[in-house]
Amino acid sequence: MTSEQQHSLEVHRQQFPALGNKLYFNYGGQGPLPQPAFTAIQSAYIQMQELGPFTGGALAWMTEKVEGTRRAIASQLNVSPSTITLTESVSSGCNIAMWGFNWQPGDHILLSDCEHPGIIATAQQLSHRYGVEVSNFPLMATLNEGDPIAVMVEHLRPNTRLAIVSHILWNTGQVLPLKAMAAACRQAVPTVAILVDAAQSVGVLPLKVDELDVDFYAFTGHKWFCGPDGLGGLYVRAASLDRLKPTFIGWRGIDMDVQGKPTGWKPDGRRYEVATSAFPLFPGLTAAIELQEQWGTPTDRYQRIVHLSRILWELLSTIPKITCLRTTAPESGLVAFQIEDFSNHRPFVQQLESQKMMVRLIADPNCVRACVHYLTLESELDQLVQAIEQALA
Amino acid sequence: MTSEQQHSLEVHRQQFPALGNKLYFNYGGQGPLPQPAFTAIQSAYIQMQELGPFTGGALAWMTEKVEGTRRAIASQLNVSPSTITLTESVSSGCNIAMWGFNWQPGDHILLSDCEHPGIIATAQQLSHRYGVEVSNFPLMATLNEGDPIAVMVEHLRPNTRLAIVSHILWNTGQVLPLKAMAAACRQAVPTVAILVDAAQSVGVLPLKVDELDVDFYAFTGHKWFCGPDGLGGLYVRAASLDRLKPTFIGWRGIDMDVQGKPTGWKPDGRRYEVATSAFPLFPGLTAAIELQEQWGTPTDRYQRIVHLSRILWELLSTIPKITCLRTTAPESGLVAFQIEDFSNHRPFVQQLESQKMMVRLIADPNCVRACVHYLTLESELDQLVQAIEQALA
Repeated sequence: MTSEQQHSLEVHRQQFPALGNKLYFNYGGQGPLPQPAFTAIQSAYIQMQELGPFTGGALAWMTEKVEGTRRAIASQLNVSPSTITLTESVSSGCNIAMWGFNWQPGDHILLSDCEHPGIIATAQQLSHRYGVEVSNFPLMATLNEGDPIAVMVEHLRPNTRLAIVSHILWNTGQVLPLKAMAAACRQAVPTVAILVDAAQSVGVLPLKVDELDVDFYAFTGHKWFCGPDGLGGLYVRAASLDRLKPTFIGWRGIDMDVQGKPTGWKPDGRRYEVATSAFPLFPGLTAAIELQEQWGTPTDRYQRIVHLSRILWELLSTIPKITCLRTTAPESGLVAFQIEDFSNHRPFVQQLESQKMMVRLIADPNCVRACVHYLTLESELDQLVQAIEQALA
Repeated sequence: MTSEQQHSLEVHRQQFPALGNKLYFNYGGQGPLPQPAFTAIQSAYIQMQELGPFTGGALAWMTEKVEGTRRAIASQLNVSPSTITLTESVSSGCNIAMWGFNWQPGDHILLSDCEHPGIIATAQQLSHRYGVEVSNFPLMATLNEGDPIAVMVEHLRPNTRLAIVSHILWNTGQVLPLKAMAAACRQAVPTVAILVDAAQSVGVLPLKVDELDVDFYAFTGHKWFCGPDGLGGLYVRAASLDRLKPTFIGWRGIDMDVQGKPTGWKPDGRRYEVATSAFPLFPGLTAAIELQEQWGTPTDRYQRIVHLSRILWELLSTIPKITCLRTTAPESGLVAFQIEDFSNHRPFVQQLESQKMMVRLIADPNCVRACVHYLTLESELDQLVQAIEQALA
């Protein structure tokens, strides 16, 4: 970075109030909300009270804002807005995909051993309700060696109707070769549907989601996009729309006749949307995405993320008691590491938090996760590493 | 009302910005957000950025706010906070209840002919997925004569596992004798579960929900409670917790072991909560409820609502071309009426909106709905009726 770029980033960062009083390395938990997003949310509340809240004028205004958010998200994923369902969270999106099949006893769900507890519990409940078989494949062990594609394909069964994997693993930060994995899975079991937990990839990787050729891609706006909590989305491949039925249903997903009776689903991703949401958040997410686009393209941001995570990984690797989980530099903004002889890293994480350095504990594998975003400063990495060295001295 | 009370109400109303530039009669669609609720939402955003957004400190603060909202809601329903699940909307709550059974082919769902389109579409999807039978009972016709209890019981079947009815009908404003209905249903079919759509009753009726002896009571904060859109709740009777399985599942509903693996459900209503929501809204709803409590008790507010709806009903009844759907004064804040020879009331509703008088169109029965809250002024009723008279002259 030239000093001019450095200056420009520091000006840009001033729009993120959360970054002003701490060293923040939890972007994978929740991103800091930029001031323009907060302002857009406040303006939306004021505007909704001015026009409504429940009037023809307010409905028209709100609908336009919702569709604006759908377009903003779609532009980042490089897909048509019609493929996007707006949801409350990543988990909501995954649940829409997981419950939307007409499950039969003996169907099989395959998931990696690194999926989020909510996904695991949902799969267990599907098993309980429908007699669906659920099994894992050992993805965690492929972080540094082995072939994640071969491991996944090996664990598919002829009756696997749904395979679930994250694009970037939330615990170790591993980036999966998703396009090749999906292609290999389809070659092995042509009828398998693929659900991707994209919590850690959206807002990080430059994406062309259609080209990945997965069925469902669930994400959130409140992590790497730095939007408000409570607003995310689900991409459903156009060809997969008819095989996935809506489960939780309300007025937003259905068409009605003149008597207000349901006549069918909305023709696009809106069919999985339920009912009233926190609509003032929508312009907030749009503003957050626009602000990041002003700083740089998705490729610019991703390049800076991997530049920074390499630096952090290299610095951590010089500390004797620390082992980074990756044996080579990370390909995402997640840097996971373990401390020698620490069976529990919680006191260490809490100590850093008391020093205003925010990292998080991961339970499995037992480690600490520090995230860098394009917003991170090199000087923050130095300060973090220095604090860690002192804590372990 | 004495002139002193009138003055006090006018001061109270100044805290609701939406009421400042229009005559508002759509409380049953969405309530106006009071300034203290907006301020609480803004403060929560600022506080979350100050503490977090993703840190131990922010999590502790946010959890306390969420539990505060649960307590505030529970105090209005006169139930234990442990019976309350916090949801995104009424529809979300109804879906939790409707999908949580282990449905078998031949099970029966009974719903009234006045339920919301989202509920109808969900029942249809359950029928499609599980071979569940769905039928209606003719509740609309009991608005002025007949016995809703007898009609409902008459349509129960030995295999009815779930019966669905609103506490106050959203279209006609009829208040159902819910406690007696539930008792009669259980006497006829002891195993039936009862789901209540409480969208129009919460924030209107003084409630002791446990005493109603229904299984599930789904509501929202953004209508008569005047909270932000995107936050509501579901009451699940303690005795019905184990018969209702969580469907959409995430980290908020489950317990985990030290490795982060799911081990079971949260012991109370939290088990149906999914994952990240728009947490800054929670103190907003709490503040809205507290503000209304400052004005008067639930009984005070309800008495004023029926006082006002009687006045509106009487005034409308004097207009020759207008027929109120009720032949006696309403028992809720919803006043529904039809205009002679209007096969479509939409242009009429739009004309009133252009004059800053906000009412809504109802499709079935074909009518116009005007809502009064305790916030409504008698002078607003006079202005509305005058505008209607002019429009029809």
